Amino acid sequence: MKKSYPLLIDVRNTVYLEGDGLVILDRRQLPHRVVKTFCRDEEDVARAIEDMVVQGAGDIGIAALYGLYLVARRESGNSPRVMDTLAVAARRLISTRPTGAHLKMLVDRALERAAEHEHPAEAILGFIERVVERQNETARRTGELASALLEDGDAVLTHCFAGPAVIYMFEYARARGISARAVVTETRPYLQGARLTAWSLAEAGVEVTLITDNMPGHLMSRGMITKVFTAADRIARDGSVANKVGTFQLAVLADYFGLPFYILGYGGPDANTATGQDIPIEERDPEEVLFFRGQAITAPGVKAYYPAFDVTPPRLITGIVTDRGVFSPGQIMDYYRR
Amino acid sequence: MKKSYPLLIDVRNTVYLEGDGLVILDRRQLPHRVVKTFCRDEEDVARAIEDMVVQGAGDIGIAALYGLYLVARRESGNSPRVMDTLAVAARRLISTRPTGAHLKMLVDRALERAAEHEHPAEAILGFIERVVERQNETARRTGELASALLEDGDAVLTHCFAGPAVIYMFEYARARGISARAVVTETRPYLQGARLTAWSLAEAGVEVTLITDNMPGHLMSRGMITKVFTAADRIARDGSVANKVGTFQLAVLADYFGLPFYILGYGGPDANTATGQDIPIEERDPEEVLFFRGQAITAPGVKAYYPAFDVTPPRLITGIVTDRGVFSPGQIMDYYRR
Repeated sequence: MKKSYPLLIDVRNTVYLEGDGLVILDRRQLPHRVVKTFCRDEEDVARAIEDMVVQGAGDIGIAALYGLYLVARRESGNSPRVMDTLAVAARRLISTRPTGAHLKMLVDRALERAAEHEHPAEAILGFIERVVERQNETARRTGELASALLEDGDAVLTHCFAGPAVIYMFEYARARGISARAVVTETRPYLQGARLTAWSLAEAGVEVTLITDNMPGHLMSRGMITKVFTAADRIARDGSVANKVGTFQLAVLADYFGLPFYILGYGGPDANTATGQDIPIEERDPEEVLFFRGQAITAPGVKAYYPAFDVTPPRLITGIVTDRGVFSPGQIMDYYRR
Repeated sequence: MKKSYPLLIDVRNTVYLEGDGLVILDRRQLPHRVVKTFCRDEEDVARAIEDMVVQGAGDIGIAALYGLYLVARRESGNSPRVMDTLAVAARRLISTRPTGAHLKMLVDRALERAAEHEHPAEAILGFIERVVERQNETARRTGELASALLEDGDAVLTHCFAGPAVIYMFEYARARGISARAVVTETRPYLQGARLTAWSLAEAGVEVTLITDNMPGHLMSRGMITKVFTAADRIARDGSVANKVGTFQLAVLADYFGLPFYILGYGGPDANTATGQDIPIEERDPEEVLFFRGQAITAPGVKAYYPAFDVTPPRLITGIVTDRGVFSPGQIMDYYRR
């Protein structure tokens, strides 16, 4: 298929059907190597999600839907049992990552569509196509609205990979004649900032400066950061935001310096999550902290701890930018009234 | 020579004369590999300091003094010119790292001793031995006084490698029956926390948990940190502290959560530095951020920025622990009245 650039601006560039399975470009290896991970069935897809071959709330959701589609296609001649098999696969796929709410919502909806339709596989595939279109439009619109918050000369700090909206934000700003630079935290241990954000923004022609995760406070103290934007893995009804670990401490630092701290909130809050305390924080294998690309970074006998996300309380958030407008965190449920 | 353990508790384990030169154990490779860097002359020593083969204010000072000693020994048959040659070597050695003040102070004093003595090499060697003894005693006493600030059940966050005092602190606490755990930030880009602190504390029998530099805020929010201790590369008269980049943002986070934030201040403030603004912040080669042990971590075309230190203002510091007692930052100049 024809790729659009930056590669990560559209999930169709990195998660797509090929032959009798699903291809996922291994996001842990980008941009250094473009490695195709071939998933033959739902278990392959579930493992790819668990192992972070695919990352980001939107892309994880699409990969999981394709996992469901592979089941439906395989079982299409077996109509009495297909919904039971789909339900088992759905539970497996939802179990892979607990912090985001988008994954479960999409998989549950796909199951509903499959149940209503004579040909479940077709129903799921049609649903995937609509979801991809909607996600892309949500990202574009979120980035467009976010760009209106940028001013000429801004130095925007961002953490992890905030998804396509962060790319659109800079592109729309430039189209309006606003010159803004990006400062990107490398985002240990997986280095999504260094690998995905810095790469994507550089591809989009944005001036990018990479720093380590212990430097933002110093740069803020020197006036080298003017605004902060990150994404959200889940937004609660009270305006609390779960996102990649490190987001919360950036919000504390922005608050200390009186800098605006914005969330790229895409499709809005999860109506089923009341507060930040109701968001489960995934703890991943400590080995991922103890090793860097297979090399030990510490001595034997040292333990590690790897909470993959953290929660930023609403009082530290200036605004949540969605495809339907910018909301103060306390009013985020107004999203559903627009 | 007989090594004492943990290895990094005594500079004599890692910086020592051998044959006709100076051996420095390459601190960038510890603990994975024990690599001897052999320095034949003052230029080799200066480069070892610049390249971070030797690190930490105390150890850098000792290495520089040995560099001066190598010059004095080489020029010992050339008495009319030896002081001129020493002065040139001293300037070169002082130029290596601008942020610390200890290095310059020690080199200047060694020059004075050499000038006063018939045999400059002997004078410098005698001075080095006294400085090492005094530094070791300063570290031991600082650690002992710091241990009195620990309480049973403490989870102590520390950043970078705070030197021997941090090891002594935990050892004295244990001797008093106080059980305290360590949480160590890995300290990118050089990973001193992961490699040196976590290793040394594990060798000393302390329970150590390694985290990445973006996690401290989350752990504090969950009550998993009770106190923070870091070292200082330089303390100004106003109580401002320059230390490894990342220290400042830990101080902001500790303040946000009302956690005590202590500095292991060893031999006290630099009387020649009035405020934090008077401390030059060394900016190192951005390549050190763009690569991890020779592997690129981002895409070509991405720039990086590497300020090696930051400055923590006195209002964020609970106390500065020295060999002469614990001072509030505003009273740090009382150090010289004890």
